[in-house]
Amino acid sequence: MRLSRSFIPTMKETPAEAQITSHRLMLRAGMVRQTSAGIYAWLPLGLRVLKNIERLVREEQDAAGAQEVLMPTIQPAELWKESGRYEDYGKEMLRIKDRHDRDMLYGPTNEEMITDLFRQSVKSYRELPQILYHIQWKFRDEVRPRFGVMRGREFLMKDAYSFDIDHAGAVQSYRKMMLAYMRTFQRIGLKAIPMEADTGPIGGDLSHEFIILAPTGESQVYYDATFEEMDYLSAGAGGFSHESAEDLERFFKAMTTQYAATDEKHDATKWAMIDAPRKREGRGIEVGHIFYFGTKYTKSMGVRIAGADGKPVHPEMGSYGIGVSRLVGAVIEASHDEAGIIWPDSIAPFKAVILNLKRGDAACDALCEALYAKFAGTALYDDREDRAGVKFADADLMGHPWQVVVGPRGAAAGRVELKRRATGERVELTPDEALARIG
Amino acid sequence: MRLSRSFIPTMKETPAEAQITSHRLMLRAGMVRQTSAGIYAWLPLGLRVLKNIERLVREEQDAAGAQEVLMPTIQPAELWKESGRYEDYGKEMLRIKDRHDRDMLYGPTNEEMITDLFRQSVKSYRELPQILYHIQWKFRDEVRPRFGVMRGREFLMKDAYSFDIDHAGAVQSYRKMMLAYMRTFQRIGLKAIPMEADTGPIGGDLSHEFIILAPTGESQVYYDATFEEMDYLSAGAGGFSHESAEDLERFFKAMTTQYAATDEKHDATKWAMIDAPRKREGRGIEVGHIFYFGTKYTKSMGVRIAGADGKPVHPEMGSYGIGVSRLVGAVIEASHDEAGIIWPDSIAPFKAVILNLKRGDAACDALCEALYAKFAGTALYDDREDRAGVKFADADLMGHPWQVVVGPRGAAAGRVELKRRATGERVELTPDEALARIG
Repeated sequence: MRLSRSFIPTMKETPAEAQITSHRLMLRAGMVRQTSAGIYAWLPLGLRVLKNIERLVREEQDAAGAQEVLMPTIQPAELWKESGRYEDYGKEMLRIKDRHDRDMLYGPTNEEMITDLFRQSVKSYRELPQILYHIQWKFRDEVRPRFGVMRGREFLMKDAYSFDIDHAGAVQSYRKMMLAYMRTFQRIGLKAIPMEADTGPIGGDLSHEFIILAPTGESQVYYDATFEEMDYLSAGAGGFSHESAEDLERFFKAMTTQYAATDEKHDATKWAMIDAPRKREGRGIEVGHIFYFGTKYTKSMGVRIAGADGKPVHPEMGSYGIGVSRLVGAVIEASHDEAGIIWPDSIAPFKAVILNLKRGDAACDALCEALYAKFAGTALYDDREDRAGVKFADADLMGHPWQVVVGPRGAAAGRVELKRRATGERVELTPDEALARIG
Repeated sequence: MRLSRSFIPTMKETPAEAQITSHRLMLRAGMVRQTSAGIYAWLPLGLRVLKNIERLVREEQDAAGAQEVLMPTIQPAELWKESGRYEDYGKEMLRIKDRHDRDMLYGPTNEEMITDLFRQSVKSYRELPQILYHIQWKFRDEVRPRFGVMRGREFLMKDAYSFDIDHAGAVQSYRKMMLAYMRTFQRIGLKAIPMEADTGPIGGDLSHEFIILAPTGESQVYYDATFEEMDYLSAGAGGFSHESAEDLERFFKAMTTQYAATDEKHDATKWAMIDAPRKREGRGIEVGHIFYFGTKYTKSMGVRIAGADGKPVHPEMGSYGIGVSRLVGAVIEASHDEAGIIWPDSIAPFKAVILNLKRGDAACDALCEALYAKFAGTALYDDREDRAGVKFADADLMGHPWQVVVGPRGAAAGRVELKRRATGERVELTPDEALARIG
């Protein structure tokens, strides 16, 4: 993408309405614009990050055997009256009347609807287990929306729902999703910690929230060093497979026996018993939440399927959420410096930015164009007629992992400067060496 | 995907509520389920098709130089009061009050919002031309929603908006989008014809709708044979490039000088002047609509940018829509037979289905598993414990382009039967030959 023709409106000034780092940087980098209180439009740079995160979330859901569906945003109120949650949800639910005066709502979550789809179609234990997920916009009418996409009213969520014939199956599904989540966050470049949590309005008796570490995070967290050392992606010995019940048990044990708590749930007595060198404290942000709630919805909504002995059974359910749009902000809270964002390679909007320090200089222009063509769409080309200082500042602000700096002297000598955003390290290379380094 | 564990609830009976072919087949093949009047959940099989179409639409928008953004579904009423369309839209607009009693709405289209985003950021003619698009759910509160996803209330639309400094630029953008549309429809496997249209509530003075040919289409169409003969994808001599103004002019001329009209606009006098062998009649379905409306919104919403001479100018706009979810139904109307759907290869949910005619037979199971592994996710495996007749019927109903039929005698001899859904042609081959044929 050529920056001169791109809809990437960067800002020099920090907008007054933005109270937290990620909100400020997302506005300044031209990633999003607010269209109503707590509602955002995603501009090209922001959308690329959102879609990269969505892709990693999807890949790990698929790898865990979950099937993707897509439920609509607008739901009928009847389903929520059936489960008994229509009144519970209060003013956070955006309630709507259609032209025929029917009660509708903008879905804040989908337990009722997925249970309804399930009961229409699944008749026998033979069709289980199933995990269904979708990645769809949700709405929660927060009374004071703020913190940008971290707490928006319209937000993108991945929510999954598991259906099992018994408790043992449901526990297996819960562990599978927990592993999928840890893999997802690791691939996004985040350190995540599952923490036991209250079940709230979803209900049920087992629940974990996933906190990622970020220096500017919203809560204080206390945890054992184990969580910093784990590798959820390694496949060999010591790794974890979704397919192996033993692996899942070992994984779940590792996640639930080591100390981890937010300040709300912090237990000073237990904390005191941990070896000092294993103690870690930091700030964290909640980015996911999983629930096992058994037959809560299958009972209230009258869902029964044939069990192995032919008798009708209420299937056991769990639900599993990741805040996809929230993660964009959370990654920035976890990875930035004074100059701007530092994208992890896996979700960066572009691999690299090419900085043409002297537009109109024949050697600079030719070298930049040649490089840009070789990147085949994976690089942003700063071809604006602007001062070098503006380009350096915008490149740091936007946070591309690599900067390829092309100046007139270097271009004449067939050299570029390659800067790694995360470390600030700079080296002079030939263009081909730079491309090889970026990979 | 293994069918025994998939959420693909096929139905033998035709649901009573479905009046048209695509609606019947989408319900029977387990692609969608209605969740409220005119609102659908997309189940795994349907979602795969929807996403394939979305991908082709996106690729052609990107190839034409359009930039992807993502605007929210919920919009503030103020923007529509500013343009003067808030009252015009009537009861089709889903109007909402949030918890602070502010007037909001579920966007039926996005001219106002994109114009607002543009005016916040773009200041100079140097940043033009720009074409911005998004693929997002829309809502139109139809009084009697019917015909399944062909006329749903919540529907997925690709809408693009062009901004140019003058009329000549706007015409160029209009032609680019028209070419992108014809390429998109050809890649989806459809015969499309652009027809001059009324501008309706969008306004403006140039508009075309895109009709695709389908035997069960909603309107009668009359057109010159030229449209059946054109190839929009060929790149060589006679082909059309987005980048060449001459190509775009030649393309636009070809599209607008040959006769094409729906029965509403049919002109018997003009029709009589066409050579009989060039006359074509058929049924068609509208799947896209493009508009040039100049400064309608930039004037009403007070958008000015600096022109080349430094004087402020109202940019010229166009808007360009494709009904993405509607296209799923439209393709089925265009491509089906008595037994079910016939997917074009480019958008099929799976390349192939593997039919295991005798589950439990060691040779059948082993051969099917080996084939399934080789397809690496691109095939559906019908591993259900069901009669062969059920599997044949479901395979034809779901419409996968290829069927790989594995029976016990063939498996013992290392042979499979390969059936092409579109032609019914069957051949006996080794598994490797079958894989090579499918490609």
